[in-house]
Amino acid sequence: MAVQTVASSTDSTDSTGTTSARTVDLGPAAALSCRECGHRVPLGPVFACEECFGPLEVAYDFSSYDTEQLRKRIEAGPANIWRYAPLLPVPADVADKPNLNPGWTKLVKADNLAGELGITGGLYVKDDSGNPTHSFKDRVVAQALEAARVFGFTTLSCSSTGNLAGAVGAAAARAGFRSCVFIPHDLEQGKVVMAAVYGGELVGIEGNYDDVNRFCSELIGDPAGEGWGFVNVNLRPYYAEGSKTLAYEICEQLGWQLPDQIVVPIASGSQLTKIDKGLQELIKLGLVEDKPYKIFGAQAEGCSPVSAAFKAGHDVVRPQKPDTIAKSLAIGNPADGPYVLDIARRTGGAVEDVTDEQIVDAIKVLARTEGIFAETAGGVTVGVTRKLVENGVLDPSKTTVVLNTGDGLKTLDAVAGTGLTATIRPSLESFREAGLA
Amino acid sequence: MAVQTVASSTDSTDSTGTTSARTVDLGPAAALSCRECGHRVPLGPVFACEECFGPLEVAYDFSSYDTEQLRKRIEAGPANIWRYAPLLPVPADVADKPNLNPGWTKLVKADNLAGELGITGGLYVKDDSGNPTHSFKDRVVAQALEAARVFGFTTLSCSSTGNLAGAVGAAAARAGFRSCVFIPHDLEQGKVVMAAVYGGELVGIEGNYDDVNRFCSELIGDPAGEGWGFVNVNLRPYYAEGSKTLAYEICEQLGWQLPDQIVVPIASGSQLTKIDKGLQELIKLGLVEDKPYKIFGAQAEGCSPVSAAFKAGHDVVRPQKPDTIAKSLAIGNPADGPYVLDIARRTGGAVEDVTDEQIVDAIKVLARTEGIFAETAGGVTVGVTRKLVENGVLDPSKTTVVLNTGDGLKTLDAVAGTGLTATIRPSLESFREAGLA
Repeated sequence: MAVQTVASSTDSTDSTGTTSARTVDLGPAAALSCRECGHRVPLGPVFACEECFGPLEVAYDFSSYDTEQLRKRIEAGPANIWRYAPLLPVPADVADKPNLNPGWTKLVKADNLAGELGITGGLYVKDDSGNPTHSFKDRVVAQALEAARVFGFTTLSCSSTGNLAGAVGAAAARAGFRSCVFIPHDLEQGKVVMAAVYGGELVGIEGNYDDVNRFCSELIGDPAGEGWGFVNVNLRPYYAEGSKTLAYEICEQLGWQLPDQIVVPIASGSQLTKIDKGLQELIKLGLVEDKPYKIFGAQAEGCSPVSAAFKAGHDVVRPQKPDTIAKSLAIGNPADGPYVLDIARRTGGAVEDVTDEQIVDAIKVLARTEGIFAETAGGVTVGVTRKLVENGVLDPSKTTVVLNTGDGLKTLDAVAGTGLTATIRPSLESFREAGLA
Repeated sequence: MAVQTVASSTDSTDSTGTTSARTVDLGPAAALSCRECGHRVPLGPVFACEECFGPLEVAYDFSSYDTEQLRKRIEAGPANIWRYAPLLPVPADVADKPNLNPGWTKLVKADNLAGELGITGGLYVKDDSGNPTHSFKDRVVAQALEAARVFGFTTLSCSSTGNLAGAVGAAAARAGFRSCVFIPHDLEQGKVVMAAVYGGELVGIEGNYDDVNRFCSELIGDPAGEGWGFVNVNLRPYYAEGSKTLAYEICEQLGWQLPDQIVVPIASGSQLTKIDKGLQELIKLGLVEDKPYKIFGAQAEGCSPVSAAFKAGHDVVRPQKPDTIAKSLAIGNPADGPYVLDIARRTGGAVEDVTDEQIVDAIKVLARTEGIFAETAGGVTVGVTRKLVENGVLDPSKTTVVLNTGDGLKTLDAVAGTGLTATIRPSLESFREAGLA
């Protein structure tokens, strides 16, 4: 365990008020390390390398773990992400603290969908709509919340266009944090209600999502933002680690085996890179047998900067202006885009995109075959899987896992055209006339 | 195990086409028994007593069970309702068949809400919004599906105003059944989309919910309805047993202990009566220590026939015309109403109701204190709990469990007034002017 004493920029908000340094216990997390240059800094609420401005990520000390003891500890753990606490930047007693306990969502063996897509090697849907606020965001927010506790923040914040706002609002409510969430002022009413119901501050910004982001960066640097943990800005290194739990769960639910192929949606690209990180950790820890696996990235055609770069053989990602119904994936300038390209190429995977029409069709196919109602991001991964099989890129004879990261109830508009198949009078005669008998 | 051969009215739909009798393996289910007169009939797709027209319910043979072996078997079972397969009317291999695997939802220790309501003895929310289609209906539909398989039905059907339609559509899709669901033709678009997306037949009936129900009863008696399993009509005895799993889970999650007090919503009243049945079974099987428990029923004032009868000291329930935002509880003539009155009185509980305004307030309180966004039915149980504490009817020093049976995303209209707490320009100046710093 790496318990450190570090200077913290947030000590002024410490309710104990007794010290200018604080003890940082984030379990096995040992430091932050720059993904670009490898420069290490102590654990703290920072996100960019002071040397090269590269992104910081959590580095661990797993050296004391015995494989079989670790496996037993995990299997005896709770039915949520905290079964993996020994592999996450959280204190060992994290499960005792009030949080939403997300994770351990269903890995659904999808035989009907497999038949429809022509996959014979075993197809699974990792269905993250089962999380407390019905998207994978609960996983990442739960990590950020623990970091916020340790760093002494008292307000939880974020910029969001929907799913994240709800996840932050709910987590803050349960944990007893103040929350203040920033969204574009003209979001759909449904998303506003969902984010507002938890009772935190919900501030509409007159501008688009980029304006919201820019404002949040300004606020972090201002005294007014002191004591504020922005889950996807100054707590981002911890937040992002939550996506590793998807990799852990998939492998454990497959009986501690790596899948052959995984299809992951790309917004910022962080989820895909952290899934790869999680798989690599399981291999190094001996929890799964090492074997080749391929990671495929999925985008909507209307926001496909990574897919475009992959197809063109580029290493850099050219930003796009998003125009797609898959709003939760609509990040035109994805921060982790280059890393996604690396991983897709290194593992022998690919990045592909589908049209809005194909997204809607895929949502319906998944619902019709497996009874899973996915949000548009799930339509993207299922649609891309179909396309990859048709193009001979994805091997249908291999074990394949497709991610559904959110709930169809949150993007009802996408399938608003779906409705009654018939309208009849309440009589058998009318029933027969409609050809239903 | 009770494997029986019975004549079945549905044999003509048997795909094997080889026999006029079928083997009925519904695990420990031994017969159907009339709740009124005790008359027993073989397991089959029937729901009313041929002697007295009373409701039939499943009778079991648990005589072969050893308590500690049973407990171990349950604890080693899957993280869904099928861990309780030995206590349900399903074949032993039920978990291997395609279904939605509902249940094993979170029992949330709700300390913040307890503080708000003045409960000191431990308050828990059993949060069934975590089910696959986000309501407790997945539990009951899963039982009906297994009965439908055993009785050789090929179409799954129901009358519904929302939650049930989605649960049936999803379960049928995954299990490879045809589905044909009947709803009033003028339901809200959101509910229609949710029920339609699974690809089954969704038939709008020109009339209200009573007309839909009446039509379904007609259809069951007609040759056109042959091979159709109506989950809440001819499969109702099996369907209703799904609610027992709420009792099982609550007790297991409390460490195999009975809670002192449970607050349950009342629509037809079936859920409450089956929770009592489940608790009684656990006591008889020795899985929990016997001690007094109280069951409280919760209704909306705008549809409170059972509450009215309880308060008036009546044994019969006078039907009401529902007028409340708690639409999933809006059954004006609840079939199990008299049994609910019996149970509330026998256990020392009560039946109470709250206004629509109190329902909305309770939804917000639950969201603000615990990060749980409940549908209106959850607002009813939380609101009634608050009222029962205030009136001195519910003992705040005792362990109390409150049910949330559905998801707030399904009843967004109820909290549509919730929204932005401020709108600002993307500048620190505007942020300060709004008093947010």
